Amino acid sequence: MTEGTTGGCPVLPSRGRVRPLGLAQVSLTGGFWAERQAVNATATLAHCESWMERLGWLANFDRVADGTTAPDRPGWPFSDSEVYKLLEALAWETGRTGDAEAEAAIKRITVRVARAQDPDGYLGTCFGHGDQPPRYSDLEGGHELYNLGHLLQAAVARLRTHGEDDLVRVARRAADHVCRTFGQDGLAKICGHPEIEVGLAELGRALGEDRYIEQARLFLDRRGHGTLRDIPLGRAYFQDDLPIRQADVWRGHAVRALYLTAAAVDVAVERGDDELLRAVERQWERSVSRRTYITGGMGSRHQDEGFGEDWELPPDRAYCETCAGVASIMVSWRLHLATGDVRYTDLIERTLYNVVATSPSTDGQAFFYANPLHQRTPGRPADANEVSPRAEAGVRAPWFDVSCCPTNVARTLAGLGGYLATADDDGLQIHQYAPCAIRTELPDGRPIAVDVETGYPETGTVRVRVAAGSTGPWTLSLRVPAWAAGATLTDEGRTREVAPGLAEITREFRAGDVIAIDLPMAPRFTWPDPRIDAVRGCVAVERGPEVLCLESRDLPGAAGLDALVIDPSAGLRAEPGGARVRALLPAHPDAPWSYPAHPAAPAGHDGWFDVPLRPYHSWALRGPSGMRVWLPASTPHPL
Amino acid sequence: MTEGTTGGCPVLPSRGRVRPLGLAQVSLTGGFWAERQAVNATATLAHCESWMERLGWLANFDRVADGTTAPDRPGWPFSDSEVYKLLEALAWETGRTGDAEAEAAIKRITVRVARAQDPDGYLGTCFGHGDQPPRYSDLEGGHELYNLGHLLQAAVARLRTHGEDDLVRVARRAADHVCRTFGQDGLAKICGHPEIEVGLAELGRALGEDRYIEQARLFLDRRGHGTLRDIPLGRAYFQDDLPIRQADVWRGHAVRALYLTAAAVDVAVERGDDELLRAVERQWERSVSRRTYITGGMGSRHQDEGFGEDWELPPDRAYCETCAGVASIMVSWRLHLATGDVRYTDLIERTLYNVVATSPSTDGQAFFYANPLHQRTPGRPADANEVSPRAEAGVRAPWFDVSCCPTNVARTLAGLGGYLATADDDGLQIHQYAPCAIRTELPDGRPIAVDVETGYPETGTVRVRVAAGSTGPWTLSLRVPAWAAGATLTDEGRTREVAPGLAEITREFRAGDVIAIDLPMAPRFTWPDPRIDAVRGCVAVERGPEVLCLESRDLPGAAGLDALVIDPSAGLRAEPGGARVRALLPAHPDAPWSYPAHPAAPAGHDGWFDVPLRPYHSWALRGPSGMRVWLPASTPHPL
Repeated sequence: MTEGTTGGCPVLPSRGRVRPLGLAQVSLTGGFWAERQAVNATATLAHCESWMERLGWLANFDRVADGTTAPDRPGWPFSDSEVYKLLEALAWETGRTGDAEAEAAIKRITVRVARAQDPDGYLGTCFGHGDQPPRYSDLEGGHELYNLGHLLQAAVARLRTHGEDDLVRVARRAADHVCRTFGQDGLAKICGHPEIEVGLAELGRALGEDRYIEQARLFLDRRGHGTLRDIPLGRAYFQDDLPIRQADVWRGHAVRALYLTAAAVDVAVERGDDELLRAVERQWERSVSRRTYITGGMGSRHQDEGFGEDWELPPDRAYCETCAGVASIMVSWRLHLATGDVRYTDLIERTLYNVVATSPSTDGQAFFYANPLHQRTPGRPADANEVSPRAEAGVRAPWFDVSCCPTNVARTLAGLGGYLATADDDGLQIHQYAPCAIRTELPDGRPIAVDVETGYPETGTVRVRVAAGSTGPWTLSLRVPAWAAGATLTDEGRTREVAPGLAEITREFRAGDVIAIDLPMAPRFTWPDPRIDAVRGCVAVERGPEVLCLESRDLPGAAGLDALVIDPSAGLRAEPGGARVRALLPAHPDAPWSYPAHPAAPAGHDGWFDVPLRPYHSWALRGPSGMRVWLPASTPHPL
Repeated sequence: MTEGTTGGCPVLPSRGRVRPLGLAQVSLTGGFWAERQAVNATATLAHCESWMERLGWLANFDRVADGTTAPDRPGWPFSDSEVYKLLEALAWETGRTGDAEAEAAIKRITVRVARAQDPDGYLGTCFGHGDQPPRYSDLEGGHELYNLGHLLQAAVARLRTHGEDDLVRVARRAADHVCRTFGQDGLAKICGHPEIEVGLAELGRALGEDRYIEQARLFLDRRGHGTLRDIPLGRAYFQDDLPIRQADVWRGHAVRALYLTAAAVDVAVERGDDELLRAVERQWERSVSRRTYITGGMGSRHQDEGFGEDWELPPDRAYCETCAGVASIMVSWRLHLATGDVRYTDLIERTLYNVVATSPSTDGQAFFYANPLHQRTPGRPADANEVSPRAEAGVRAPWFDVSCCPTNVARTLAGLGGYLATADDDGLQIHQYAPCAIRTELPDGRPIAVDVETGYPETGTVRVRVAAGSTGPWTLSLRVPAWAAGATLTDEGRTREVAPGLAEITREFRAGDVIAIDLPMAPRFTWPDPRIDAVRGCVAVERGPEVLCLESRDLPGAAGLDALVIDPSAGLRAEPGGARVRALLPAHPDAPWSYPAHPAAPAGHDGWFDVPLRPYHSWALRGPSGMRVWLPASTPHPL
């Protein structure tokens, strides 16, 4: 990574309770996430580029440049954004590894993108060229500013890992065009899909261009006044129903709501706008406590890919779009940087393991788009050469008609090192546990250098080894997840219990010192809030940060999961990476009506037996399968 | 009603286990349904015509006739069908009452429709005129044949209540056009929305035109071979995924599946095609036992207005489109006529009281489109002058962007007398209990004349009074609903218990004889099949044929229904038209996370109290309200 690139931070606020450490300071060195980063680097990035080439999404840029744009333009209006998200992923990847192939890919894609930019900075392949409708003639559905927002995020990644280049210059011209067109004296409009806001805010920070941040603020405050045309799903679909400062909860399309909220945190922080920050915190609190799945997944409805009402959390029809998981992390990370509150990094961990990690296949060439918590019928295997039209197939697919998730996973995994740890004037905070090397310094210049060694989440011991001592005390803070009651910290031969939150050690550290935290990794039952109607009478099993699930392929016979009951009173037996639970498969008589006046008793069963539960993120990796996270319990909640 | 009009039967198969009695033989004389018929006649019919005039759906026909069709044609491609469904409703209404206003409406609408018919019989306002796309250029979404199917059904109603007229002639020309265009040697295509099939089959029967029935068969057997283009929702959406003879269950868009199935019964019966009839019975059995709500409602998903998988029956996101209820009755009535099996008329009763009766407001000028079984947030009152874009508002709306339900309710209520009773060579079968006069005759010419007196469903006693005696015995059969265990029959001073099914009395009846059936109307708890995940741990309450519900407006304070628990062990207290149940509203602490490691006990409550349950069909009549059919139970299922 080039010097002076501000360390490869995906998000870098000018102020906040803590400072993020970027790719220059944190390197993943092995384990769960490093494996996924490697697959992302060696397989997913090329996979994405090749699909976009094959489908003509890249050629759309050439056609604009060559003046050959025609009504047969392939792809949805937002296909440009996939190219930009791939550029962002490639930028984090080169920042992380200096990989020459990724660098070459950035250059060859940037050339094609740059050629398509109009002289006034406008960039887009779906409007304003040839016989296409005019620019900004469909702000509800056209996604033009959404696309540009992703271009700006790609440029931010490039700036922070490499420095100014053609991509950054393209983005700067595009941002200037947006400010001219939609500024205080311009069109008082907004884009149906938020994203330009977060792109502008971060590019403004990266380039020191305050007017980009101001433009983001303008877009934010314009929203919620019915600027966009009403649609059958209602204006809540694109969060134009209510000004963001007045909203109490996230609603409508989940990815839109979350991208918008990420920008709101950026603007609130840069402007010292506490009212806005409090509004976002309030929305986070209610949405996370009442509209979020145990996996961290968000989005209860297929119809609008959106949030449902409070307590509307059906496991079978859970949408939990992979992109919403990515966007949720964007929001929580920003809130954490602003406040230092670990509830945000708790949710990030949950979302990383149970949404982001769930999407890609082991080979990094197929993805879940939706992440339901209950699959009744095994999906049909996806054809590796076919675009999947459906988000709900119960199988990972190589590419989608709307293919936002693969590139979102790619950029998140490539930049993941930037979400692990933070620093403040007193020291270092480690939030996500993975083998890694952290090298940073205190404001007074004293070095902080630690290496994290762990088999997490397979095992619960995390060792932080001090690589270089420094004179005088500083504070090492280790996040104890909310689920980790009974965790212990061992330092200088003494072991003490540490409560969920931040476990802190303030002392002078010497090279070779080892601080160990032990998180309780026994599988545990988790009961849902009784107000979540769709999983009443059910219990889930978690192990560390991982939600476990039962796959139908692990059941005897072909009975499937429909009639399954488990016995929580029999407890859980730990297994490597999972657990076993006692289960029963009652044979229900085939009744002509499911709501009989006089219900029949089950016709019998083959007795209790043990079934394995495995991490939810691994479901269907062995092939299509039925699956349940929430298991009907034979005994009610112990309360 | 004109003589020789085959008695005003909505469905009149040429053979079958029983024969339907039509409007000429059965007149509703009072009570629950007669009240709704009167509101339909005096308010709904004019309401529908006025909205279609206001929105230009009627003027679309004028524009075709005048050659002024332009790209600004208002309404969806299927708006023509609403005009035809209104014509059908008006035809049943004139058949029922001879109402001069309805007759005048038929004539004035028919003139406008007839003027729009092309010389070759094609009739449609959305294709083939002016700059419109060519006829049949969008069979997936264009709804051209769907529209014509409703035209044919309107003509059937007119034929059977009035005889040949201009409307019938228009329909005949349209049917001939369809047969020429899509016949054995024509276009081997089908319409994305089934309906032409059932229209052709019934018009074929009404006019004695076997080739219409043959065309219906052709359409049926063409379907399921991927004739239609694939769409993101999959070909199951329009039942083109699988030949109807091979299918085991209904899937995809519910109204489409059910209209198609109704036609399949017609064709099976007319062709003596037992294979097809068995296929439909098999589909009915599995779909009714695993994909149907306690209300009789069908359609578990908003996304595609479609059936879900087996056991996928969420109460909150239940779609249960009113039109699917109407279509389900169409299917079950046909199956009943073919087989005489009362399971079909059982389901019809359930669907009439809990879907069809639920849709219209008391004044007949607002309608539910979707019929969920759980509403968390009260809807916002609908504006009587606004088209509602949304099917899920929790309030009845005067009209919809897609406004299929109001006219479907109208035609069903106007023709309802045709669904109450049947006859066979041995006598009379009464299936739906309402005050009515039945006048028919046995094949040997002996009269059957009975008057039904009842306060049903408010009270459970039904008296059948013989109005005219006849020499020699015949059989009076009275349906005992499946829920009515303990029902009794009183005849000639003797009372005996009668089991669900048909209670039969065979004897010579004298004028003035009264046969009474007493159905147990005490409210009762109903537990769902344990495989219905979404209502696990809940219980419903039914009373007679009515499903009851709890409205949030009947709860103390503003706590809402989220935390409600009821105590089944405390039993039910009967109330006029409803019941009272013991309930608790625990105060749940506001937790930051809904799946805590250590769940907190409820923070307290105000003790048990009684809440009223009212018929589901009356919900939100007193204004917007939260509502639950399925009530979380404090004690588990007794088994």
